[in-house]
Amino acid sequence: MSEPAQPFKVGLLGFGTVGAAFAELLEERADEIQRFNGRRPTLGGVLTRSRGDFAEILEEADLIVEVMGGIEPAREYLLQAMRAGKHVVTANKQLLSQHGEELFETAREHDVRLRFEAAVAGTVPVVRVLEESLSATPIERIHGIVNGTTNYILTEMTRGSSYEEALADAQRSGYAEADPSDDVSGRDAAAKMAILARLAFGTPVHLDQVQYEGIEHLHRDDLEYAREFGLGLKLIGTAERRRGGLSVSVHPTFLYSGHPLAAINGSFNAVTVESETITEITLSGPGAGGRQTASAVLGDVVSVMTGGARPPAPPLPLELVQDVESAYYLHLDVVDRPGVLASVTKVLGEHGVSIKSVVQRGMGENARLVMVTHPVIDSSLRTAVARVGEFDFVSSTPRTIRVIEEEFV
Amino acid sequence: MSEPAQPFKVGLLGFGTVGAAFAELLEERADEIQRFNGRRPTLGGVLTRSRGDFAEILEEADLIVEVMGGIEPAREYLLQAMRAGKHVVTANKQLLSQHGEELFETAREHDVRLRFEAAVAGTVPVVRVLEESLSATPIERIHGIVNGTTNYILTEMTRGSSYEEALADAQRSGYAEADPSDDVSGRDAAAKMAILARLAFGTPVHLDQVQYEGIEHLHRDDLEYAREFGLGLKLIGTAERRRGGLSVSVHPTFLYSGHPLAAINGSFNAVTVESETITEITLSGPGAGGRQTASAVLGDVVSVMTGGARPPAPPLPLELVQDVESAYYLHLDVVDRPGVLASVTKVLGEHGVSIKSVVQRGMGENARLVMVTHPVIDSSLRTAVARVGEFDFVSSTPRTIRVIEEEFV
Repeated sequence: MSEPAQPFKVGLLGFGTVGAAFAELLEERADEIQRFNGRRPTLGGVLTRSRGDFAEILEEADLIVEVMGGIEPAREYLLQAMRAGKHVVTANKQLLSQHGEELFETAREHDVRLRFEAAVAGTVPVVRVLEESLSATPIERIHGIVNGTTNYILTEMTRGSSYEEALADAQRSGYAEADPSDDVSGRDAAAKMAILARLAFGTPVHLDQVQYEGIEHLHRDDLEYAREFGLGLKLIGTAERRRGGLSVSVHPTFLYSGHPLAAINGSFNAVTVESETITEITLSGPGAGGRQTASAVLGDVVSVMTGGARPPAPPLPLELVQDVESAYYLHLDVVDRPGVLASVTKVLGEHGVSIKSVVQRGMGENARLVMVTHPVIDSSLRTAVARVGEFDFVSSTPRTIRVIEEEFV
Repeated sequence: MSEPAQPFKVGLLGFGTVGAAFAELLEERADEIQRFNGRRPTLGGVLTRSRGDFAEILEEADLIVEVMGGIEPAREYLLQAMRAGKHVVTANKQLLSQHGEELFETAREHDVRLRFEAAVAGTVPVVRVLEESLSATPIERIHGIVNGTTNYILTEMTRGSSYEEALADAQRSGYAEADPSDDVSGRDAAAKMAILARLAFGTPVHLDQVQYEGIEHLHRDDLEYAREFGLGLKLIGTAERRRGGLSVSVHPTFLYSGHPLAAINGSFNAVTVESETITEITLSGPGAGGRQTASAVLGDVVSVMTGGARPPAPPLPLELVQDVESAYYLHLDVVDRPGVLASVTKVLGEHGVSIKSVVQRGMGENARLVMVTHPVIDSSLRTAVARVGEFDFVSSTPRTIRVIEEEFV
């Protein structure tokens, strides 16, 4: 550089694992960023619970990075920053999935950048790819493994651990929090799918509108039987066009081994985007870790410095559809006597549930019936299964898990 | 829109498969692009071999799309366009891998955008991810399957076809050209790796500096033996830091089944980017097809409209290193008599080639020795194998194929 570059001041809100890693990375990479941007990013003020003053930090910042988490005061700080004409970068999925429109609208009004790659899928750059590479592509469907904790647990369960063992292992290895409920309940994944759905389909989706189901109730048995059908089990978030509307949900889901998400193991995240124009692309990489998340945040900062994408366009709402078709795996414990299978399939048939494959296995006086159905509307499946559960020969609550049937290359 | 939007005029050079698909997609998506950009992209002039005038097209265009291919006149047109202050989007890998620096420098000088997502890996948005998401990340290594034709052929060979059968099949299915030499020789992949290496490492790499080797000489046998070692065969491009410099190459390569590229089948492309900060991310999707390539080109156009990334920074050259370490698979046909294995391993050992695993199989008077080595410098391996080939008990030219040893999650 022949002339001294004007620094680009970054105000940092939050100094936990991600904040500290971000400050370190920013320092490490400042030279290189200056080399291709002309300006050198430097850390301005830092706000923690015990030190720093937001107004002062805002005053001198070119951009505000928010990695404090939670709804308030993060929301208020980001709104104030944008109203003051400052760009913002956030990793806050709770906030975006509950107050996204307010934030996007404020960014549009004040013509500032609002970037949030780190909020969605760890290091996997799906936000940028949706916002930019695919912004001119009509998307049909997104499937994602967007929670590394649950994917780690399910991977361990596939290798023979019980849910409790796998969770304890994840906690020891730092892949699960002491209180893992946000992850294992599916709520964390639901927040991320709400954000992805907004980007991909232009429809505002609030966290509360995402149907989600966690992994706490899964049995090792489900995984064993699934193997007999050539299936693997993942916690899959889905956002897709259905019956003229949009369906967004998170469920434990069986995948055939050819599916691109079936090979994603451990704490990795991955997202598959399908459209008629591009067929399907898959992005995968490590889920969150302090340094990985910080790297995604820094990528957003650099993107703002180079003049990146605009905030999402004003919404173009699609109706949110709740009751959609899906294939199901169905597991029944029954008393082993003649006519049981016939009675079950008769009731299922009356509700439009047709069976694709079935395995029956005797165990003394009892038997297990494990089936995979053809696609059926959720509500019909639930009604049918409730009726099956009323038979006196059914000895425990029937268990159902969704199945993605598509095979890929 | 309350006021009429000013159109954004796109001049199109080339109207083959990609050009025609691009014109169609642009028309289809213009409303949606206008909705989030405010301006409506419209097709300005079109230049083909038989119609159109470049000067007129340039005059009225906001941006030039070049999908004519070849070096000249594409190079001259792009330079003229940038000098006239027009943004450009190209899908031309030959041009970028041979005249990239000239083009990048012209873009920087005239402060215009030069985008080329479609030149590298079909719909896989690796250019954008390297330029933007990972621009602040020190990258250690890139592995890519960047040629769909050869991946299709190798997938078919893995399923039992001979090279000739698989090639004929690829030609029938439209995955290979009538003259497939640019693909099967590895040259097309080498051009793409040169471009990726420039983006990831900041070092100008000319196509002529990329060592490449194609798939024409591969035998069905190699694939069968490989399976015994748990290996799959892909044409892999590699760009990586080695001994303080940069090594860029394309070779048929065996991968262990846990490697993220091992699962990429058919005409798909995929790229894995490794760095200490992010561990490793993988992007995959369909290789080229007219409509897919056009979709990547349109993504670049939209990116320019929204103010995308700058051209690559001025180069920061690393030395290009040619002679690097790699593990190898080694296949020998020998006369089956005592002492053969001992003689072979002795010569290999003298050149620092140590054996990780070996399979010997008798076939009447003959035997096959198939080995996987520990990592060894290329030149040592070549010398050692040449000496082994001189033994009178070796009955055909020894065959070697690289192996990537790393296991992933």
